[in-house]
Parts: sequence; C-alpha cells; structure tokens
Amino acid sequence: MIYFNCDYNEGAHPRILQKLTETNFEQTPGYSEDSYCREAADLIRNLCACSDAAVHFLVGGTQANLIVISSALRPYQGVLCADTGHIHVHETGAVEATGHKVLALPSHDGKISAEQILHAYQEQADNDSFEHIVQPKMVYISNPTELGTLYTKEELESIHSVCQKCGLYLFLDGARLSYGLSARGNTLTLPDLAALCDVFYLGGTKCGALFGEAVVITNGSLQKDFRYMIKQKGGMLAKGRLLGIQFLELLRDNMELYLSLATHADRLADQIREALHQKGYRDFVENTTNQIFVILPDEAIAILSENFSVTYQCRVDAAHSAIRICTSWATRQEDVDALIHAINTLPY
Amino acid sequence: MIYFNCDYNEGAHPRILQKLTETNFEQTPGYSEDSYCREAADLIRNLCACSDAAVHFLVGGTQANLIVISSALRPYQGVLCADTGHIHVHETGAVEATGHKVLALPSHDGKISAEQILHAYQEQADNDSFEHIVQPKMVYISNPTELGTLYTKEELESIHSVCQKCGLYLFLDGARLSYGLSARGNTLTLPDLAALCDVFYLGGTKCGALFGEAVVITNGSLQKDFRYMIKQKGGMLAKGRLLGIQFLELLRDNMELYLSLATHADRLADQIREALHQKGYRDFVENTTNQIFVILPDEAIAILSENFSVTYQCRVDAAHSAIRICTSWATRQEDVDALIHAINTLPY
Amino acid sequence: MIYFNCDYNEGAHPRILQKLTETNFEQTPGYSEDSYCREAADLIRNLCACSDAAVHFLVGGTQANLIVISSALRPYQGVLCADTGHIHVHETGAVEATGHKVLALPSHDGKISAEQILHAYQEQADNDSFEHIVQPKMVYISNPTELGTLYTKEELESIHSVCQKCGLYLFLDGARLSYGLSARGNTLTLPDLAALCDVFYLGGTKCGALFGEAVVITNGSLQKDFRYMIKQKGGMLAKGRLLGIQFLELLRDNMELYLSLATHADRLADQIREALHQKGYRDFVENTTNQIFVILPDEAIAILSENFSVTYQCRVDAAHSAIRICTSWATRQEDVDALIHAINTLPY
Amino acid sequence: MIYFNCDYNEGAHPRILQKLTETNFEQTPGYSEDSYCREAADLIRNLCACSDAAVHFLVGGTQANLIVISSALRPYQGVLCADTGHIHVHETGAVEATGHKVLALPSHDGKISAEQILHAYQEQADNDSFEHIVQPKMVYISNPTELGTLYTKEELESIHSVCQKCGLYLFLDGARLSYGLSARGNTLTLPDLAALCDVFYLGGTKCGALFGEAVVITNGSLQKDFRYMIKQKGGMLAKGRLLGIQFLELLRDNMELYLSLATHADRLADQIREALHQKGYRDFVENTTNQIFVILPDEAIAILSENFSVTYQCRVDAAHSAIRICTSWATRQEDVDALIHAINTLPY
Repeated sequence: MIYFNCDYNEGAHPRILQKLTETNFEQTPGYSEDSYCREAADLIRNLCACSDAAVHFLVGGTQANLIVISSALRPYQGVLCADTGHIHVHETGAVEATGHKVLALPSHDGKISAEQILHAYQEQADNDSFEHIVQPKMVYISNPTELGTLYTKEELESIHSVCQKCGLYLFLDGARLSYGLSARGNTLTLPDLAALCDVFYLGGTKCGALFGEAVVITNGSLQKDFRYMIKQKGGMLAKGRLLGIQFLELLRDNMELYLSLATHADRLADQIREALHQKGYRDFVENTTNQIFVILPDEAIAILSENFSVTYQCRVDAAHSAIRICTSWATRQEDVDALIHAINTLPY
Repeated sequence: MIYFNCDYNEGAHPRILQKLTETNFEQTPGYSEDSYCREAADLIRNLCACSDAAVHFLVGGTQANLIVISSALRPYQGVLCADTGHIHVHETGAVEATGHKVLALPSHDGKISAEQILHAYQEQADNDSFEHIVQPKMVYISNPTELGTLYTKEELESIHSVCQKCGLYLFLDGARLSYGLSARGNTLTLPDLAALCDVFYLGGTKCGALFGEAVVITNGSLQKDFRYMIKQKGGMLAKGRLLGIQFLELLRDNMELYLSLATHADRLADQIREALHQKGYRDFVENTTNQIFVILPDEAIAILSENFSVTYQCRVDAAHSAIRICTSWATRQEDVDALIHAINTLPY
Repeated sequence: MIYFNCDYNEGAHPRILQKLTETNFEQTPGYSEDSYCREAADLIRNLCACSDAAVHFLVGGTQANLIVISSALRPYQGVLCADTGHIHVHETGAVEATGHKVLALPSHDGKISAEQILHAYQEQADNDSFEHIVQPKMVYISNPTELGTLYTKEELESIHSVCQKCGLYLFLDGARLSYGLSARGNTLTLPDLAALCDVFYLGGTKCGALFGEAVVITNGSLQKDFRYMIKQKGGMLAKGRLLGIQFLELLRDNMELYLSLATHADRLADQIREALHQKGYRDFVENTTNQIFVILPDEAIAILSENFSVTYQCRVDAAHSAIRICTSWATRQEDVDALIHAINTLPY
Repeated sequence: MIYFNCDYNEGAHPRILQKLTETNFEQTPGYSEDSYCREAADLIRNLCACSDAAVHFLVGGTQANLIVISSALRPYQGVLCADTGHIHVHETGAVEATGHKVLALPSHDGKISAEQILHAYQEQADNDSFEHIVQPKMVYISNPTELGTLYTKEELESIHSVCQKCGLYLFLDGARLSYGLSARGNTLTLPDLAALCDVFYLGGTKCGALFGEAVVITNGSLQKDFRYMIKQKGGMLAKGRLLGIQFLELLRDNMELYLSLATHADRLADQIREALHQKGYRDFVENTTNQIFVILPDEAIAILSENFSVTYQCRVDAAHSAIRICTSWATRQEDVDALIHAINTLPY
C-alpha cells in the first residue's frame, strides 16, 4: 500500500532529526524560554517583517486554534468561518468546549468572502435582539483551505478591510502554509500575512517537522498573557526547545528547507493532477497545492484503492465520488510515478 | 401603541397573583423543597401519566435549555436542532458556553424530520474520522416551534423511533406548549410527550405565569443529580415555591386555566389570520398557534407599525417582508378588533 | 414549628405584591428594557451618588456572582475570597463551571484583610513560575459576610487601595446588604460602596422582595456588553420589569422600605442575642446583623429544635455546637418572644 | 552553570532518538492508530498485569490531567487532592477551565490520607445543603508527589478502599513514576497501581523520553470515548507513533531503560542527600526519590547559586529557606561530584 491519504504519514525531514540529536544533551530552561525558541521567534519576526509580533510555539493545530480563539474572545463572542472550516467540522468541538460558538458560513471551495463576513456581522449588529445573538468578533480562515484553495492577496486585503471596519480579529490557520507559499499562482507572502492578519500560524507538523505550529500574533491587544493560556490548555511543552530547534532548521536561510519541501510536494501534486485531467477526470475543487480533490467513477476508486491509500471525500452522484489525493514533503517520485501509471490504466 | 410583538408583555393571570398573595406569609423551605412544588410535580406526573418522571421548576427557557442539555451530554457530545432553533440563534451561545456544539439542520418551517436526524447521526458515526467530529447525542425540538408550527403525533413517533435506534436523547422545548395543546389540528397530548420524549418542559412564562418552566424528565438515566446542575447554573430559586404555586394554579382541574388561556390566544390569532388571508396576504409559514407569520408589502408594514407593535422577521423580496404578529393569554378582543380593522384598510 | 433557619421563608413584603398587581396588565418591552427598570436604575445611581454606574437586575445571588465574575475575568484569571465565601463553598462550583478558579484565603469571621489580598497577589506575581499559576484578578467579599460580620469603612478603603495598587477588581456581594446598612455600628453607605467597589449588588431576595439582585457596575471597563453575559448565562428575565418594579418600591423615598425592613430584623436579632448572652452562651462569631451565630450545648440545641427551626453550623467541642439563628424582614415579634422564652428555660 | 533545577533540561536518552530516526520514513496511520502505539499499549497492559486496561498516549502532564479529569466527571463534580497538588497550584487552573473545582486538602509532605478523603466525602454527603456543594467524585494523587514522597502499598490500599466505599475514582499522576519505582523503600509495582487505581499514568517527559505520558485506564466505565476527549482538548498528536515508539523503547525488556535511568537519578540524589546530611542540613521533606528538599541558610543558598541552578521552594525562618535539588536520568556523576564538593565547603 502506498499512502497518498495525508501529509503526516512520516516523521520529519532528516535535517530536523539531526538537529535534535546534535542539541540533545544541552541543558536549557524549559517551557520555550530557551535560546532556540528566542532565535526562532526572532527569525520569524524578520521573515514577517513585523518586529513587534509575539511568536509562540505549539505542538498541534487543534491546540493552536482553541488557544488562539479562546484567548481572543470574551465569553459571548463567536468566530466566523467557512462551513468546511477545520474548527467547525473536524476538531470534536474544541472551540465550543472553550465556550465559544463557531458561526459557519456556506462555502463551496473552502473560502469565505469579505461580503459574507460583512453580511454576517451586520445581521447580528443590526438585529433588534442583538444581545440575544452571539456577537461575531473573529474571522477564522485557513490558507491553504481544507480544500487546498488559496486566498489571493486582493481577497485577503478585502477581508482585512472588512474586519477592520467591523472590529473583527482576523485569524489565519496556516497548518499547510508552506504548500500555499510555494504554489503556482500564490500571491501572498509572510509579510502580507503579518500585515493583514491579527494572528496566524506557520504549520510545521504537515510541512517537514515532527510536530509544531508557530503562532504569530501581530495585534498587540492579543499578545498579553498568551502564555498563561498555553499553560492552562495543556499546550506548554516542557522541553519547548524541541519546537524552537525544528522551526530554526525549517526556516533558516530564508525558509530554504520549509519552501523546498513544499515545492517538492506541490510539483508532484501537479504531475498527478495532469494525469487525472488527461484521463478526463474533473476536479471536485480546483487548486494548486498539495491536496488534489478529484471526481472519479466509483469503480475507478475501488481499483485505485487496492494499492493506494487515498481519502474518500463525498458522493457526487450515483456513480461518482470525490476523493482527496495528498502529496507531502516526503512523497517519493517513484510512488507518484506508480500512481500516475495506475491512473492511466483506470476505466473512465 | 397596541402590542402584538410578543407573548410576554403583561404580568400574569390575576389568579396567579392572587395565589401568590394568599400564600405570601406562609413559611416554607426554600429551593423548591416545599409542599407546593411537590404537589405541582405530582400533578404534572399525573397529567403526563408518567408516575416516575422527575419534575423540576426553573425560571426561564434559556436557563432550562442550557441546564437540561449540559446535564445530559458528555463534553464531546452535541445537540441536533433546526437551524431556526432557539438554542442555535437566540440564546447568545448559552449551550456553547457550557461546552457543547449545537449541530444545526436546515429547516424551512421550524421543524426537523426523523430522516434528517438519522442522516446526521450516520454521517458522524460512519465517518472514518468519527472521533474528530462532535458526537450527536441529543435532539432538540420545540413545539410549537419558533415559527409556530406543530409536530404531529406521527412525526414525533418517527423522531422518537430514530432517537431510540441511534441512542439519542429527545428533548422538547415547550416554552409555548399550551398554545400548541390548544391549537386546531393538534394531535399531541402530555402523555404522548412523556412517552416519546426523554425530557421536555411546559412553559409558564409565555402562557399565563409571571415566569417559570416545568421540566419533566422521563428518562431515568437523566434524572440523577439534576438539582446540582440547577444550582450550579444559577437556576435554583431561593423561594422556589413561587414556581410551584404558579404551576399548581395553571394546571389544576385538568389544566383548566393553562388551556383556556391558550385557547383564547389561538382563537384570536385565527381571527387575525382570517383577516390577513381575506385581504389576500400569504403566510410566510402556515400554522395554527398564537404566532402569525405573514408576508406584507413593506408599505403596509410601515402603516401598520404606526399603531401596532409587531416583529420584523425577514425580507422576502424587494417590496415585501415577513412579520410576526403574536397574540397571548392577555390579548384583548378589542385590540384584535382594532388590528383587524387596520388590516382591512391596508394597501394591498 | 417556628422558622429561624433563614431569611427567605416567606414571599415578599405586601407593598411589593401590591405593586406587581397594580402594574400587571401594563404592556411593556421585555428583558428589563422597560421604564420601571430604567427608573429603578436611575434611582440606584442616585442613591449611590454614581451617575455613570451601570445597573442590571438579576433574579438570584448565585446567578449574579457567576455572571459578574465570568464577565470580568479572562480565562486564566481567578477570584480571591474568604474560604467561607459563598462562591467557594455554597454554589456547587458555579464559578469554576465558568472556567475560573476560586482562590480561597483563610478566614475566621468571614472577612479577609487587605494584607491577605496583597500577599496572595504578590505570591503569584513574584513567583518564577507565575504563568503556571492562576492570576488573581478579582477580590470577592460579601457584606454582611456569610457569618454576619461587617467590613468597616476603613477596612474597605484598605482593600480598595490594595486592589487599585495590584490591578484587582473589587466585587462586593450584597445579598444581605440592607441588614448591614441598618446594623448597629455600620460605617458604610451606598456611596461608599460605589466609590470603593468596581461592582457590587443590593440584595432583594433576602431583603423583602420576592426575588432579585440589583448589580451596580461602577468601573466603566466592566460595563461593556454585560447584557450579553446575562442572556448567555440564562439570567435574562423575560418580564424584566418584575425586577424593576420591586426595587423601585423597596428603594424609593431614600430606601424607606428597604431599610425599615432590615432595621426590624436587626433589632429582633439583637433581642435574641441579648437573651442568649444573658443565659451565658458565647457567640461563635460576633456581629450585629440579622444572623446570630452562637455556641450551645448539644442538649440545648436538641430541646430548642423541637419547636424552632435553626441551622446547624458546626461542632465546636465534644458537648457543644454552633448554630445559626436568623431573623428577617418578615419575622414576627411574637415568634421572637417565644424563642426568647424558650432560650430562658434551656439547660446551660 | 550546572543545572539541578529540574528533570527536563535535556532532550531524550539517545536510544529514543535513535529509534525515532530508524523509523522516520515508515508510513503509518496518524493519531496513535499505528502499530507502534498498539504494541506499546500491549506492553503496558502486560507490565500492569491488566489485560483489559485502555492505554492512551499524550504529550504532557497538564494535558493528561485535564483530559482524564474532565472525561471522568459530570459538571457538578470535583476532584480531591493535596493542597500541594500540581493540578491545584501549578497548572494555571487547567482543571477549573474544564469546569471542575479542585477540592484541596491540607498536606505537609505532598500526600493525603484515606481518612482525609473519607472526611471530605462525608462532609459533603452528610450536609443538609449537599446539592449546593461540589460533589467530590475523584481523588487525585501523585506518586512520587510534588515533594518527592511516596505512598506505601498499605496507604494506597487504604485510599483505594475508601474510594470504593464512597464511589470515588482514584487517579494517580505518575509524571515521575519511574523515580518512584526505582527508589529505596518503594513498595508499589505497576500491577499494584493497576489494581488500586481507576486511572494513572507513566510519565515519559521527565523520565528519559523527549515527551509523552502513557495513560492507563483500568476502570471500564472511564474508557468509553476517551479519544474524543483527547481530540477535543487538543491532545491528539498527528504523528502519534512518536509516542508509541518512545514508550516501546523505554519499557521493553521489562522496563529496562525506564528503570535504569531512574535508578541512576535516585542514586545520585542519595549521594547529594548524604553530603547535605553530613553537613548537618535538615530535610524540608524526607524522601528517597530524585527531588531533594533541604533547608539551608540563606547565605549558603546564595553561594551555591553562583554555580548551580537549584529551585527556591519557600522561606522557613528569618535566616533559612528550603530549596529543591533535582537529579534526572541525564545527570552526570561529575556534576554531582562538583555539587557535593561545593556543599562541603558551604558555611553552616
């Protein structure tokens, strides 16, 4: 079985493991108060061109989402997001467990628009019973989205502009950020994200690290006492340096490792995409990142699944379903070649 | 200004106030451990033909909803409801504030079907990532619904049956229950509700009392330690007898006062409904209870609003909107006559 | 059986019921947005000499405590209080259920000192692991305390001063406030409370009303969006005017009814106190309000309990226990006379 | 500076890193559903002689504590623990943030007794107002405790017995468990813990792993749906195998690595202890594990701190304070020798 089902099947890039091994016997303070975390935070501030950002390192994405959101909101405030958003559908109610409602907006491609956000805001604010309705206070988007799509710089600027106008915080989940930064057609840079978002994170877990997400808080009013929140929610890693060391290695030399690994995955995804298109299959959602969402005849999915692990997405019609095929920093060209070969021989 | 905007503009039926006055100087234990509450609970058990139900008296509906739901669910479990459900849209996230996700299902008339519930249950249970998705464990319905519609006995039996099959608790919000019990075409009785629901409540606040909701828990596994939950959520009234006394008066003699007040309101609503229909106005949602949802030209709404307070519901098209007109136990025939007269002279 | 076990055995003062009856059929907006609540709020601002205070009316004390505290604190912040504090020992963890730790300080008489507060604050602030420890951010005191004692103006000024220095909010639970305002030796006025506390409330439930607590928020930074919190926690009474009407009647004419009822109770308590002292019994805690805490031989308690309901407080030694004897606005002189007669004939 | 301030200054034992490197490119399912986690769970069940235990792997101790406790308790239930307990004083209110009160019992050596537990249980259960008081439902103990002390088998049996009698769950925090298992005078084995506790964990973070705690749930009623809780609280590691691989290596061959590392640390602690005692210093708390709590003259502490990092515990008298000196699996003999040399030359 060859795995194309997700982007976290392997451990970490060998350079990451090597750094952990090299530094293993150093004695450092715990809880990310070591020099590696400090250096990694400085590096991220530089890459973001945002010298007064606060940077915190967390172990995983759900943890990052629930800590950021519950830290920013007062009890009666909620977070707007696409109805495909990870926090809405795939985190076992982690945000609600901190007391906050997720306010889902309809989405077909994983994205939401500035107009949707403005409308949702006004609907509550203008309602006679506004105090009886959860107050939207934050917008959660992911980039790439859960469907692999990307926001353009223009779209993010519009969202930012609406958020400023409405007093909403903008939070961008970058669990797969590197695959977006490296994708064909991407127009967003780290300094753009830092300028347009109040808080966002650079994913490590799915992008070459063993684990880790680097949360960047650019809005000063969200920075205070964030470490208390991390500790309270069980997110403060005793040997916090493990996070700093990994991000230092991924991001040094202008994100050399971080971007080259993502470029690799995106390029391999393009090869697979082309094979699927040549075969005549339609995309379920078009995108240019490492997740391919494609519609296949059920019969073809059955055949493919004999040798390749892919993810079932949803039924499309009586005879077709959508699946997700995922490459990663660790995907081998030979496995992609085998997959393409298999695609070429599928029944249409 | 004559008020048709809601059913809680006045105090209580005079018989309620009289009973509170008569009993005022009696000394009783607090926290609903008095004989009035005991008698009222016995009476409700009798009316429900359910001798082992637990009955608790709470002050208001949001309080009842949040206490019942948070008492029944484990932290990772959620509650299914219509997307028009009060807990989803009109309680400032009270349920989420106790840690639980509200799982909204699309509804056009305020009701959800057994099929929708089954589908939602299976979607989570059959998902490969089921542990990453909130587990549906309770179904919340209201009857009458927020749009004044009623479940038939057959519909409730189907929902009950699906709930049994899927291990879901069925919770019925009866904030306006009397207006349903008294409505044309109603097929549900208290013993039906007791037989088909795990927990439900009889509303007092909107049905003739100063305040109060009587929660009936028929499922033995939901009865344990419920009073701890009431106390913790701030719902334990020091002078709990105020609730028992009111429900005793409303419900004695086979619910004589409770039903006669609701019949009065439903009948007056029918008079208004008929006037609206004769004028040619269409219902936004058809129902037979004390809430009328009707579509009017914006111009007509403006004229009507000069002398009558009604509730804006939503825009329907460029020139029409839906409004809610509400009668209650306290509505006077003369005010209905005035409203009907005004309707008759509206521009169509 | 004559009840001296608590101060909420009866309904309300007849003038309260009369006002509710008089206004019963008026149509008013719900949720405390009526003119009675507005007038009552204005009256309270005047009585407090605090024109920019926000005033909100809630049904009960636990509700008031949990809403005020959870509205004021960020998730990692806690509230300091006496280990006898109602929120610590008698509210089924209502505050913790909103996510906040109650930080208990030792107390023998129900009070805590400015020094204790300062010490607790510094212990956390100066700790190397401060982020691993709940951050104290609010001080909760009750006046009269759960043991009937009163803070002096000097003590409250000291506490206020420490709170200002440490950035702590000062919250005073006034569930029995009138019995304090009317007590021998009291040195605190409503304007004092408004000047020294960030938020406090005037109790109605135990002081002559059917129910109700009037929350006064003097600190502007705690005022924003408080009504969202009330709604979310199930505390927003549909017919909110019931609260406004009651407080208007209690507090008009310079708190005439509120204070005269409390004076009555305090005076009767003094009569009982004197009989106990003449008999040679020692106070468990000395105070001048409507709750008497006295140490009696177990045998005497047994005899007394045959005709009088009192509250067991705790064991003092092998042969003695402390009990609470409580008068109220509704206590009758003839019942006090009977109690005193019984005391006089107890074995010593 | 040589660090004796805690037991998580370094990374992991080299054999751990080697295993992570060897398995790095294997493709496995995520979220601890891989074969390594399965094997590690089987191994732990064998070591515990408890074939029907559920075993889950989490990243850290605070995470483990908050997930276990919030999974076991209903909303109005609390957890008894020593007032020195980690969950009470050092986790930023993580347990309260899940809604549950920590019920602290006084302790001088980090331990609580069966008698204390029984008394606390009865105090609530027998109280007339029991529904107004948090219901104790779980006992949290740590072993070794936060003060390095150990429960004897007899003590744990007594606690177990009281818990059974009162219907309380017994939860043992084993963050430093290996240092207890290896200590002089220890009388507890893994099978004992499995037989006497409802749930406990074997710490990895402080005992040779990079990170990780292995939660063992022996009580079947606490096993259901535990993985939902892990996910919801942000504790489900994407590459869960990292945990399984580490515990497999630590625990294989009858816990060879796990115990040898702890034995090393305990033995070095004994060397330091002896030097302190010979110098005439008194223990703050006597124990036989890797944490030494000793009382030193302030002057001696100042001198020692120039070259050695130790932890300040508390002031003992005007001229003396208690400090903690901590060894670990990674402590070097030469650093211990240097410390002992420094101790020998301290002023007494």
